[in-house]
Amino acid sequence: MNTPRGFRYASTYAGIRKVAKDDVALIFSDQPAAAAAVFTTNRVVAGPVTIARKNLRSSAGSMRAILANAGNANCATRTAEQVAVECVNSAADVLNIKPNEVLPASTGVIGVELDSALILRVLPKLHSELDAERFTHAAAAIMTTDTRLKTAYVSVGGAHIAGMCKGSGMIHPRMATTLAFVMTDAAVSRSALQLALSNATGRTFNRISVDGDTSTNDTVAVLANGASNVRPPRKAFEEALTEVLESLAIQIVHDGEGARKLVTIDVAGAPSDAAAEKIARAIANSPLVKTAIAGSDPNWGRILSAAGNAGVVFDPRETDIDMQGMPVCRGGLAADFSEDGLKQKLDAPDCTIRLSIRGRGKGSARFWTCDLTEEYIRINASYRT
Amino acid sequence: MNTPRGFRYASTYAGIRKVAKDDVALIFSDQPAAAAAVFTTNRVVAGPVTIARKNLRSSAGSMRAILANAGNANCATRTAEQVAVECVNSAADVLNIKPNEVLPASTGVIGVELDSALILRVLPKLHSELDAERFTHAAAAIMTTDTRLKTAYVSVGGAHIAGMCKGSGMIHPRMATTLAFVMTDAAVSRSALQLALSNATGRTFNRISVDGDTSTNDTVAVLANGASNVRPPRKAFEEALTEVLESLAIQIVHDGEGARKLVTIDVAGAPSDAAAEKIARAIANSPLVKTAIAGSDPNWGRILSAAGNAGVVFDPRETDIDMQGMPVCRGGLAADFSEDGLKQKLDAPDCTIRLSIRGRGKGSARFWTCDLTEEYIRINASYRT
Repeated sequence: MNTPRGFRYASTYAGIRKVAKDDVALIFSDQPAAAAAVFTTNRVVAGPVTIARKNLRSSAGSMRAILANAGNANCATRTAEQVAVECVNSAADVLNIKPNEVLPASTGVIGVELDSALILRVLPKLHSELDAERFTHAAAAIMTTDTRLKTAYVSVGGAHIAGMCKGSGMIHPRMATTLAFVMTDAAVSRSALQLALSNATGRTFNRISVDGDTSTNDTVAVLANGASNVRPPRKAFEEALTEVLESLAIQIVHDGEGARKLVTIDVAGAPSDAAAEKIARAIANSPLVKTAIAGSDPNWGRILSAAGNAGVVFDPRETDIDMQGMPVCRGGLAADFSEDGLKQKLDAPDCTIRLSIRGRGKGSARFWTCDLTEEYIRINASYRT
Repeated sequence: MNTPRGFRYASTYAGIRKVAKDDVALIFSDQPAAAAAVFTTNRVVAGPVTIARKNLRSSAGSMRAILANAGNANCATRTAEQVAVECVNSAADVLNIKPNEVLPASTGVIGVELDSALILRVLPKLHSELDAERFTHAAAAIMTTDTRLKTAYVSVGGAHIAGMCKGSGMIHPRMATTLAFVMTDAAVSRSALQLALSNATGRTFNRISVDGDTSTNDTVAVLANGASNVRPPRKAFEEALTEVLESLAIQIVHDGEGARKLVTIDVAGAPSDAAAEKIARAIANSPLVKTAIAGSDPNWGRILSAAGNAGVVFDPRETDIDMQGMPVCRGGLAADFSEDGLKQKLDAPDCTIRLSIRGRGKGSARFWTCDLTEEYIRINASYRT
């Protein structure tokens, strides 16, 4: 795989999480990188999100490093912002860069004090171990309830884009989701990067849902250091970035807490793309649809009912639904299909739901979710214990 | 208990549901009753809801009977409205009243044809067995995944109000929830009755959530036949009706699919009552909060995060949270509490969450929900099988 030139990575166990598994990651760009980020829209915002926003502003979007930890969200504590600032300052010291060139990020439990000393102590080690080959190590260090590593690589012209992310629960983005870091050696201006990121997250990270909760720490950040000396056309770069983010977003849903199935929802024929997205989101968030999928039950009535709750005006009698490519509902009524046959098809790890409204509407949207299983409950009823 | 005068009830097994348990209920008023109702806001609407609305309009809110069935929602089928009309016409025939004096209601699976012959066949039997003492029989006949009978009785002046309802899943009202029928022998005008019902549902049935899904069949109907010759003051009647509906609504949440705990959420100090309700609703709908309660985990960070997603502007640093009356969060930060002690208290079947925002806001709201357990998944992954 071709990772972007001019980036190095390191990770280590700092003792933040209970199990001895790497919990701090450092990403470093050998030269200043144009940076863009989108953050949670939750009113409750973690310390590192506040500091990351501030640093992006004061550095005019020029970044050298990302410092991330798992095991503690550094949110809703007395010292949240102070801890983030201390970590950023010390990292800048060690890396010999400016504090506002460091983007901090955290994930984990909310409301528990994070001891900055734990992170400060490992910064020299992280610095000395920075290595272009340790991309996946860094990706592993930000995992929480994740069961799989989540990475994606795309090339555009002669430039490379590599992304990593974490996320499994508290997934229901309004702006971004969880933590995702994307590095590219393409040469992209700050403003073009932010626009490309906003457009790309709108079609990827804002189109996934595991449980309808939006975290306090959501951050998607892109660093473009230009080390390839390739300046891809704007459109081509945005498409490549979208491809990376779509792959990461789908990996999150695939690894949704307790999930056994990835569900792709397509809505077509809505009055507008926004309306289509609303309908798709309502279906994706319905626990009754998600449990039906878990049980391989072709219960299209729940899909139609969820769509009816989306706050979009449409005529159920003009609505067709397919599951796994089989017609289950035509004109709001049961289609003629083999229930046993479809039940078997729904046992597959990939499920598709397609809802289309007949008529003149041209609005469409794709959304991803997962099934809702007993394992989700088990994971979340005992997350802290 | 004092049931309202002038009402009689009957129920029987018509063969709609698979298990041989009563699935049709008939409620009859010996004299014309003022009737008011609120219905689902889902765009997908069951046949009986359409016909009930039509009958209420054409009879100017004068009703004699409610005909309800469980086991089939009579929704999203070719014949839904036609079946509702046939049942209403036949019931009117048998009862010797006008068709538009019958309010139909259905609950059960969506998208499966309901055979009207099953209901038509049992109408003479239901008619002949009408009995003032069979109130609870009728209440039992409308149960689906319910595990408990849900009834409530209140007296106001010399008049009586008795309510029954069903509901366990697909509970997240925007207008009403599931099926609820309230009978009173108070003398109340049609317009006063509709106003009282709208106000009362706003504070009760619209303040509960089991799973965030709004059904296609939700109906709350009140019949006031005046048989007591008591005309209670408007305010007193509304309060008594609210008491009945609150009791029924709480019984639904208590019996939420898979629920082991009733959770009462109070929000205070919000910019407005509507804002308080939004925050309470966001907490009530958060799967992460609901699974934490299931695990007796005093994870107040999830409560604060859910509140932050409500779309209400407030300062987390001004926010206090109590669970079971114990402070767990003060000013957006962890309060000093015994985690083990609180864990034990959270094992109780009744849990309380109180979120209050310091400052000048006077908005408050109470909301009810239940914990989210593995049993919810089991029930809904196999509902139709």
